[in-house]
Amino acid sequence: MSRLITSRSKDPNAWYSDLVKHAGLVSKSSVRGCMVINPYGFSIWERIQQILDLRLKETGHQNAYFPLMIPLSHFEKELSHVEGFAKECAVVTHHRLCERDKQIKIDPASELEEALVLRPTSETTIWNTYRDWIQSYRDLPLLINQWANVIRWEMRTRPFLRSTEFLWQEGHTAHATQEEAQTETLDLLDIYVDLVENTLAIPVVKGIKTESERFAGAVETYCLEALMHDGKALQLGTSHFLGQNFAKAFDVKFAKQDGRLEYVWGSSWGVSTRLMGALIMVHGDDKGLVLPPKLAPQQVVIVPIYYDEEQRKEVCTQAQRFQSAWEKQGLRVHLDDRDLHKPGWKFAEWELKGVPLRVAIGPADIKNQSIELFRRDRLEKISVSWEGVNVLGLLDEIQHNMFQTAKERQQKHTHITDDYDEFKEILSQKGGFLSAHWDGTTETEAQIQQETQATIRCIPLSQNPKEGKCIRTQKKSSQRVLFAKAY
Amino acid sequence: MSRLITSRSKDPNAWYSDLVKHAGLVSKSSVRGCMVINPYGFSIWERIQQILDLRLKETGHQNAYFPLMIPLSHFEKELSHVEGFAKECAVVTHHRLCERDKQIKIDPASELEEALVLRPTSETTIWNTYRDWIQSYRDLPLLINQWANVIRWEMRTRPFLRSTEFLWQEGHTAHATQEEAQTETLDLLDIYVDLVENTLAIPVVKGIKTESERFAGAVETYCLEALMHDGKALQLGTSHFLGQNFAKAFDVKFAKQDGRLEYVWGSSWGVSTRLMGALIMVHGDDKGLVLPPKLAPQQVVIVPIYYDEEQRKEVCTQAQRFQSAWEKQGLRVHLDDRDLHKPGWKFAEWELKGVPLRVAIGPADIKNQSIELFRRDRLEKISVSWEGVNVLGLLDEIQHNMFQTAKERQQKHTHITDDYDEFKEILSQKGGFLSAHWDGTTETEAQIQQETQATIRCIPLSQNPKEGKCIRTQKKSSQRVLFAKAY
Repeated sequence: MSRLITSRSKDPNAWYSDLVKHAGLVSKSSVRGCMVINPYGFSIWERIQQILDLRLKETGHQNAYFPLMIPLSHFEKELSHVEGFAKECAVVTHHRLCERDKQIKIDPASELEEALVLRPTSETTIWNTYRDWIQSYRDLPLLINQWANVIRWEMRTRPFLRSTEFLWQEGHTAHATQEEAQTETLDLLDIYVDLVENTLAIPVVKGIKTESERFAGAVETYCLEALMHDGKALQLGTSHFLGQNFAKAFDVKFAKQDGRLEYVWGSSWGVSTRLMGALIMVHGDDKGLVLPPKLAPQQVVIVPIYYDEEQRKEVCTQAQRFQSAWEKQGLRVHLDDRDLHKPGWKFAEWELKGVPLRVAIGPADIKNQSIELFRRDRLEKISVSWEGVNVLGLLDEIQHNMFQTAKERQQKHTHITDDYDEFKEILSQKGGFLSAHWDGTTETEAQIQQETQATIRCIPLSQNPKEGKCIRTQKKSSQRVLFAKAY
Repeated sequence: MSRLITSRSKDPNAWYSDLVKHAGLVSKSSVRGCMVINPYGFSIWERIQQILDLRLKETGHQNAYFPLMIPLSHFEKELSHVEGFAKECAVVTHHRLCERDKQIKIDPASELEEALVLRPTSETTIWNTYRDWIQSYRDLPLLINQWANVIRWEMRTRPFLRSTEFLWQEGHTAHATQEEAQTETLDLLDIYVDLVENTLAIPVVKGIKTESERFAGAVETYCLEALMHDGKALQLGTSHFLGQNFAKAFDVKFAKQDGRLEYVWGSSWGVSTRLMGALIMVHGDDKGLVLPPKLAPQQVVIVPIYYDEEQRKEVCTQAQRFQSAWEKQGLRVHLDDRDLHKPGWKFAEWELKGVPLRVAIGPADIKNQSIELFRRDRLEKISVSWEGVNVLGLLDEIQHNMFQTAKERQQKHTHITDDYDEFKEILSQKGGFLSAHWDGTTETEAQIQQETQATIRCIPLSQNPKEGKCIRTQKKSSQRVLFAKAY
């Protein structure tokens, strides 16, 4: 297997494809736009799942499971919702195969009375169930999460970033009051920010979507936007305040303490395997993946170096001592004692896989009581004495440094501008986030997109809104918004 | 909500439906044969997942994820495989909806060039991928597991026992030698036996399936069979030795050390949410679910009893002391201090949910420095002094007792017979396992099924085969096999 990765500066798309393949993250599937997630890729996703699942449970959420298939009649109950997903649905129409002319065909006699849509998201199924689960204020709040596969028939697909099938969690909550549902929507946004910034080491901007980018069926959509290496933005998670829209569509009412019936208030929110795409695009380099220590399946890999059997024994014994000492500190340590490959081959392999810290130990190191550490984030070698080594501290530093580096890049590529020519030039030259005024209309948003390919990623939450003039129309603007070309 | 459960002796089907509903395990879904798994039910399944997942990882297996949708052309590559599943497939044929006459319809222009089958199991997808993953003996063994939803269009469905969509894990392994693949197949069977007997407290018989019950595409199918309360058998897991069947169908070869190419040997194995059905059917009673302590989301529930505010404070303070002491022992303890419900209501609720140990503590208990324990398995109250209480030991005893009770019932309902009239009479009267001789032919097996509705559940592994005469044809039989009516 050639593990050569195309240089990112030469061809960013080929770089991405090479990296996900050679680092063992995904394999091609025979179904258009679907991916096989390889064991190494999946182990990173499992870690994201574990961390987020724990956090969701700590904040009172419970997991459940709802059917994959949605009857068409349920799916269409919330009209703007079905319109939002109609163009990208996988539809089940038959339930039997048969042999005809020595070929396996669909049995036409097995056509379903009602077609079934594979969930692109589960609001309709879940709110249809909530009608049975919710009778009184005592049943609220209802804080449910599900880990599931979803299907969206996308035209252009790329592993992790946009695929026909992907894995995600989707939370669906029901509340007695508008305020409570809004608070939940924002709390979840903060949980996502914490996950992405402190675990994935990716800085984000949180904000509100404009009407044209709002989730189909939501009153308000909040999002996390991150900036990739190539100057394009990637939406990493959304949290929707649903108002009473789905409660009304599915007739979900609750009896208040005074006995009056009212429609329930809702929120929904999700993050997906797209996070894996962001990890690659933000931290990766021409040598491969770079994993933040908190997520890395192996945080430290030890590569023993030896030239004969006697040296092998001595070096491996010392390597095992380090391994068990570091494992006692709670670290995930792998000793790569395969005889099949040379150290140089192993070095390249673990760089490709993004292991944060590589440790080499050979006969000279034994003599000097030292080891060689290699930081994946800085591609930097350090020789340290056995006494002075502090792997735990170094991993913390790497985690911190990865976030800081990405943060600085994000800041460097965030431009404040009031000039439309400059706006267009920055976008076509280097991309990035553009903070500019907008008159608040869907028409202007569409015009700007047509002229520059940039969309409004969000109206940032963490700013003091200042008035100004729309960069395109010069009409009044209540605050700056964040434009970018996006994935 | 009425929580009345139909008595099992009166109507076993209604008992089951009432129990799964009122204990909070599943809800009805609007899709035929699909279930919503409620948070309580799902938390039990999550625990099964955790325990098995850990065990699989400890034995060198890695998780991965493969697409839900399988192109028809791949699905039909292993002929006996497609024949086995052709009658129960959900088939995706279109990928877009449109509005017509103010109704949402399937867009006929979006018909797929090739229909996609929703996985009933993933051998075809996975072996198609293994062709890329496996080149040389160094890539073997390949030990992959996936947690996923699968779809089988069953005609008669019941929550957990047989549903159109269910959750499971499916392992798919590839090996260099026949022997290694066979060993893996049997090792997994033992992992399943350990899980089911020691965690779910359900005794099983392990054995080999006859040809007619063999997995479509396998050389040999091994299984776990358990006996339900009503005398019917339930298959709880299977492990298949695939020989080189899928390797040949998907052209998966590897280079041996001497450079020669050979087809890879395979195994596959799975357990599903059906385990939840077995839990209910084996341990449940007219009061509801009975959970083995190792699986119970709450192992101990403390119900405080009080008549005024002063008592409430005193009782709850002491209850919290117990809670934190037991939690320190690693136990899952819940203090039910809801003011809304009376103790009697709470008792019934926790009995319904199957909590192994209920603890009541009231003012008299405070005075006497005692507490009242209620064992769910024996419906038995015990008053114990604060000093003498050993909750950890009691939970161990409950776990052990539940298995023993089920084991004794299984033994009591396992009949050895050489007389076909007696065979038929036992089956029609009380059911159970029937150990009888069989001539080894599919014809006789079918005849017996037609005449008695019983099938051969398995040829048990753990016996010294003794020759005899077939119970139906009097022809020569090499060993007894296990018959039963089955779910």
